[in-house]
Amino acid sequence: MSLTVVGSVAFDALETPFGKRDKVLGGAATHFGLSASFFTEVNAVGVVGGDFGDAEWDVFKRHHINTDDIEVVPDGKTFFWSGRYDYDMNTAHTLDTQLNVFETFDPKLSDNSKGSKLLFLANILPMLQKGVREQCPDAKFVAMDTMNFWISSMKDAVIETIKVVDCIIINDAEARQLTDEPSIYKAARKIMDLGLRAVVIKRGEYGATLFTRDGYFAAPAYPLESVFDPTGAGDTFAGGFMGYLAAQNEITDDAMRRAMIYGSVMASFNVEKFGTERVDALDYPEINQRFADFKRMTHFDDIPFERATAA
Amino acid sequence: MSLTVVGSVAFDALETPFGKRDKVLGGAATHFGLSASFFTEVNAVGVVGGDFGDAEWDVFKRHHINTDDIEVVPDGKTFFWSGRYDYDMNTAHTLDTQLNVFETFDPKLSDNSKGSKLLFLANILPMLQKGVREQCPDAKFVAMDTMNFWISSMKDAVIETIKVVDCIIINDAEARQLTDEPSIYKAARKIMDLGLRAVVIKRGEYGATLFTRDGYFAAPAYPLESVFDPTGAGDTFAGGFMGYLAAQNEITDDAMRRAMIYGSVMASFNVEKFGTERVDALDYPEINQRFADFKRMTHFDDIPFERATAA
Repeated sequence: MSLTVVGSVAFDALETPFGKRDKVLGGAATHFGLSASFFTEVNAVGVVGGDFGDAEWDVFKRHHINTDDIEVVPDGKTFFWSGRYDYDMNTAHTLDTQLNVFETFDPKLSDNSKGSKLLFLANILPMLQKGVREQCPDAKFVAMDTMNFWISSMKDAVIETIKVVDCIIINDAEARQLTDEPSIYKAARKIMDLGLRAVVIKRGEYGATLFTRDGYFAAPAYPLESVFDPTGAGDTFAGGFMGYLAAQNEITDDAMRRAMIYGSVMASFNVEKFGTERVDALDYPEINQRFADFKRMTHFDDIPFERATAA
Repeated sequence: MSLTVVGSVAFDALETPFGKRDKVLGGAATHFGLSASFFTEVNAVGVVGGDFGDAEWDVFKRHHINTDDIEVVPDGKTFFWSGRYDYDMNTAHTLDTQLNVFETFDPKLSDNSKGSKLLFLANILPMLQKGVREQCPDAKFVAMDTMNFWISSMKDAVIETIKVVDCIIINDAEARQLTDEPSIYKAARKIMDLGLRAVVIKRGEYGATLFTRDGYFAAPAYPLESVFDPTGAGDTFAGGFMGYLAAQNEITDDAMRRAMIYGSVMASFNVEKFGTERVDALDYPEINQRFADFKRMTHFDDIPFERATAA
C-alpha cells in the first residue's frame, strides 16, 4: 500500500559528547521517509529553500522517495535546527531554531499523495495535520505525531486532530502532558478513548509500547552500548512502523506488533551515527539480523510451571 | 533443588498516596521467601525480636518456609523500617530505621541450610554475605543483592563478594554506581567480568534485564495502572527468579529467561497491596495467567520481511 508523510525537511547542526556536525540533512519527513523506504514506496510532502542542494536530493533519490510534493522556495532558506546532547541522550537542548520557509508551510498534496492508503502526519501545527487528513479520504490508516509545544499552547486543536486519525505515536512525557495522568497505562487508555485504534508510546532508552483496543505489546530498546546521536530516532521509529504496515495486505494487531519491532530496529540504527548517515547506508541483511536479535532478546519458552509439592 | 535465603525479617511502616500501614510484616528474606515458596522449599536465615508474634510466624508456616534458622532474641526488638512514597513510586523516602536485633545479625546456618544447592544473599553487609557463601560449598548457583550504602562506603568489599557468587540482582542506579558507567549495558558487562555467570538489572517500572555471558534478555514490567506499594518488589522479583530456578533440573540460559518472567510476575503482584498481603494470598492459576499475559505482551510472529521492489 502507498504511504505519504507530511512534515519537516531540515538542516541540523548537532553537538553530542561524541562529536559535532555543522550541517547535516534532517527533519521529520526525511528521517521517516528514509526509514520507511526500506519497506514501501514513500511520498514526501514538505518545503525546502534554495539552499537545498544535490547532495540532499540524492539521499531521497537513492531511496526512491517521491519528492514531487516537496515544494522549493528558491529565494528562501531551509528550516534549520541546532541542538546539543549531554551524556543523558534522552534530552535535546535546543540552541537555535530558524523556521525559515517552514514557518509558512502549507502542505500541498498531489493527487498521487492524496490517494495514499497510509498517511503519517509528522509533528506540525495540529490544524495543518487535520487539513491534510481531510484531503486524503481514501487513507485506511492515518498516524500522527505531536509535541509538548502544541499540547501546552493548543491542546484542544491537538485533540480535534487525534479524533480524525487512527493512531498516535508520541513519547511518554507527551502522553502524560496530554492527559494529566502520571501512569502511561492510564494515559494511553484515555487517549485511545478519543477514538483511536492504536496508541504507540515511545520511551527512549526503555523501548516503546503499543496499546490497541484490547491488547498491549512492549518492545524493548536495542541494547546499544553507545548512543551517538538520537536526533530523528522517533521519526525513524515511526517510518519503520508505518513502512512495514504499508507493506502488509491488511493492518492487523499482529502486523502492528511486528511493525513495532521494525520501528525499533530502524531507530536503533539511526542513533548509531549523525543525522541520516547510518540509515542511508543500511542494507536488508542488517535489518533482518537485528529483527532476529529482537526476537532472541524477548522470547522465552512457554513451559507451564507445576510444583511437585504445592504450597 | 533446595534454596536458602539470608537477609532481613522486619516490620515496616508504610505511607503511600493510597493509604498507610503502621506495622506490616516486611524484610528482604520475608518477601523473597514468600515469593520463592510458590516454586520450591525455602530455608530462611535471619533474626527477629521477642515482638515477632504468631501472626508473623503463621505467614511463614502457611507457605512451608523453614524458619529453623531464624534466630529469636527474646529481649530484643525486630528490625523496623518506616518509609513514604509519593506519586513517583520509584523512590522510597526513609522516615525511620531502627536496626534493633538486625544490627548485630550474624547468620547461623544449620547443616540443612548449608547444604542448599541455591543460595540468595539478600542485602546485608557484604562481608557477611561472603562469609555465608563460604559456608555453603555445595551451592551450585549463588545470587546476591546489595545497596547504594555499601557501594559508596565499602565498594571493595562488595566487589570481593561479587567475585564469589554466580549472579547479582541489583537495580540500574546501583549498577551505574558500582561501575561509574552511565550505560547499563557497559555497566553490566563490567560487573560480569568480575566472574559472574549472570547479571540481572532491575529497572522499576521499565522491567528487568538479564545479561549472560553471551546473551541479553529484556522483560518488561507488567502494565499496572496503579502501583499500590512497591516495598519488597525487588526481593519478590528475586524470589520468583531463584525459586523458579530451584525447581529446575538444570540452570540453563533458557531457564533463566523464564525465571526473569516468573520474577516479574511475582513482583507485579507484590506491588498491588501493602507489604506481603497480595503474595500471601496468591494462587497458582493467577501466577500462570500472568505468565501467559507476559508471553502475549512480548511475543511476535517471525515473518521475514521481503520488499517486492528492493530499494
